[in-house]
Amino acid sequence: MNVETLTPPPSLADADTLIADMGARARAAAKRLAVATTAEKAAALHAAAHQLRAQATAILDANARDMAAGKSTGLTGAMLDRLRLDDARLGGIADAVEAVAGLADPAGAEIDRSTRPNGMELVRVRVPLGVIGIIYESRPNVTADAAALGLMSGNAVILRGGSEAVYSNRAIHAAFTAGLAEAGLPTDAVQLVPTQDRAAVGALLRAQGLVDIIIPRGGKGLVARVQDEARVPVLAHLDGINHLYIDAAADPEKAVAIAVNAKMRRTGICGATETILIDRAYPAPLAIIDALIAARCEVRGDTAIMALSPHVEPALSGDWDCEYLDAIVSIAMVDGIAGALAHIDRHSSRHTDAIVTDDAATAERFLSEVDSAIVMHNASTQFADGGEFGLGAEIGIATGRLHARGPVALEGLTTYKWLVRGTGQVRP
Amino acid sequence: MNVETLTPPPSLADADTLIADMGARARAAAKRLAVATTAEKAAALHAAAHQLRAQATAILDANARDMAAGKSTGLTGAMLDRLRLDDARLGGIADAVEAVAGLADPAGAEIDRSTRPNGMELVRVRVPLGVIGIIYESRPNVTADAAALGLMSGNAVILRGGSEAVYSNRAIHAAFTAGLAEAGLPTDAVQLVPTQDRAAVGALLRAQGLVDIIIPRGGKGLVARVQDEARVPVLAHLDGINHLYIDAAADPEKAVAIAVNAKMRRTGICGATETILIDRAYPAPLAIIDALIAARCEVRGDTAIMALSPHVEPALSGDWDCEYLDAIVSIAMVDGIAGALAHIDRHSSRHTDAIVTDDAATAERFLSEVDSAIVMHNASTQFADGGEFGLGAEIGIATGRLHARGPVALEGLTTYKWLVRGTGQVRP
Repeated sequence: MNVETLTPPPSLADADTLIADMGARARAAAKRLAVATTAEKAAALHAAAHQLRAQATAILDANARDMAAGKSTGLTGAMLDRLRLDDARLGGIADAVEAVAGLADPAGAEIDRSTRPNGMELVRVRVPLGVIGIIYESRPNVTADAAALGLMSGNAVILRGGSEAVYSNRAIHAAFTAGLAEAGLPTDAVQLVPTQDRAAVGALLRAQGLVDIIIPRGGKGLVARVQDEARVPVLAHLDGINHLYIDAAADPEKAVAIAVNAKMRRTGICGATETILIDRAYPAPLAIIDALIAARCEVRGDTAIMALSPHVEPALSGDWDCEYLDAIVSIAMVDGIAGALAHIDRHSSRHTDAIVTDDAATAERFLSEVDSAIVMHNASTQFADGGEFGLGAEIGIATGRLHARGPVALEGLTTYKWLVRGTGQVRP
Repeated sequence: MNVETLTPPPSLADADTLIADMGARARAAAKRLAVATTAEKAAALHAAAHQLRAQATAILDANARDMAAGKSTGLTGAMLDRLRLDDARLGGIADAVEAVAGLADPAGAEIDRSTRPNGMELVRVRVPLGVIGIIYESRPNVTADAAALGLMSGNAVILRGGSEAVYSNRAIHAAFTAGLAEAGLPTDAVQLVPTQDRAAVGALLRAQGLVDIIIPRGGKGLVARVQDEARVPVLAHLDGINHLYIDAAADPEKAVAIAVNAKMRRTGICGATETILIDRAYPAPLAIIDALIAARCEVRGDTAIMALSPHVEPALSGDWDCEYLDAIVSIAMVDGIAGALAHIDRHSSRHTDAIVTDDAATAERFLSEVDSAIVMHNASTQFADGGEFGLGAEIGIATGRLHARGPVALEGLTTYKWLVRGTGQVRP
């Protein structure tokens, strides 16, 4: 058992000094990672996965301590479930770290190339962002996931997990960095903020020049607080108020199947549909309502929808801007695609919106005019996920417009530089 | 003569209300631009260029008023020169607007595409950023340049120029929007903040949700102030403290030619070299020093460089972090590429750094390890420019790491969205 990971976290005298020191060490490690080969990074990930398995007892002991504290402080069952580790879950964490080692290395990849009339050759190549700060809540697996994605993309990471997982995070971090050391890469490449003092988060958010980007992973409250305080750029994921529009020309079988899946497959994920819009000219709206109710979904509708079934509750105005993350859906009747586009433009959080139709022109109009990170035709919004998109693991889904949009995987953790190869050219 | 453009700018009662109104109108215009065809946007640019020529008298009258005010308030000769318009310069501005119409339209371009095992097709396509705020100083040509680049990339722009060019900017803006109206595109696509009150800049910098990105164009003071105050993401260009490293294996003829060109071709541009590093093993350092002095450059050196020529002044510690933008260069002797990399890592502003060498391995090591937006081999740093890179016009050179790096042209004013085309897929 690793005793060190079970000592209480230190208190904090000077948050800015702490973060400045961590940032400087991260920057030095990032320089080493920027020139690490794909094979070196993959070997370090395999070593980290091995250590996560080898240190299972220490990690599960640490997690038991967090669980005991969580029970005594009254965490909800759902929160305790997110926090809990067992052999199977820890094995899954180690497997995920190894899976990242198999992803394509984005660093050094060529984006484009050209030759100028004077003979100079220009190449844009991807390079790591540098130092990434990740602020997250109760799930301890994020400690290993974020470390793995950061490492494979050549970035150093500074992790700050939630208080309720402090011992679990420290144990996972200790195992991961043991893997780095074994593979000959700097352990400063993956650092964990050694205090739960809120001042350290503030210092991290203000660490311009030390930290290149902050990625918050957690609920809306955490993300909003980070966005509000940060002076470092933030790659943030806000709400998923996603819409599914059933067009007049939708195939009724697909419409029912997609509506039920988009809403009910897992109601708590950001890709879940929250509002369904039904074209007034669609012939079979009741089948959709009935299928949702049969799937134990609460349906809240506007007056036109309420008129179709006695089981529909009235939707209040707030319902159209609500991310339920639960077995509740709001349904509105709209006048064709124009009505759907107007509703979506007003209420969508611009995460994922979808149309069901067999009319190709209507589908293309929807894909073109809906301004969301992900726009789908005849598919469930629940596919909004980096893994489902073939990107491998994702660090999050970005709802902003800059740098990266939608699922963010390894490529989103890189920037680029311009390489110019000349033969003595001077500018006239 | 256009009298309207010669009325004094209104004072400002409520900056936030003004910017909120402009932002809402810009957002509506951006929606129209997002679905405008390339031909529509190009036609609008041609119409704008035509109007700039047709309204030459009004624009030059307005500029004369700014020039008179500038003289009475004591603007320097250099500032007055930047402000001054004449027929030739205005013709150049109109030509530049037309040139943008000939650039490749980035909106709608496909970035990548894949088919998932379940048959879903994924395509990433470029889409405009939305609403861009541009804050700039005395050059009135920026009004037309920024409007043209914004329009061609499908973005609405909110422009806020400098006080000294207020009448010129209003006249150019009036001509440009007349072109938009003629072409049937919304004039709200290009708006000029109608007041010079600083509160309006503050409101623009805080306009999260209304403005998607702020691009400051101007001196270091302006950019730093914008970065400090902004809550909207900023695409900023800070210093160009650029280095030229002369390796032991440099061809002496290329070394002299590139050093003189990199420093002296135009000393005031951000791509100018500010520090030259000479490998201690390079056989002909004096020829470089002499050539710079012959080109009327003041040379400041470390003790090793001073020992080579009585015409070298001593470099003080501040010299290694100074963007002279003038006919002054600092030169240091370094120990090979390792010494050069260490100096650059410590002092470069990560804009553009170059090596002169005929050793291919050394060149590749430099290109790989220097972490700057642009890294060059055997070419002058003065090539650091969107036009020279074949990008057409540039809105600026980004020295940050996120979203876009180096010269930012039309592509840098876009983001992307994911289009998913299915045939009824639901997620298992």
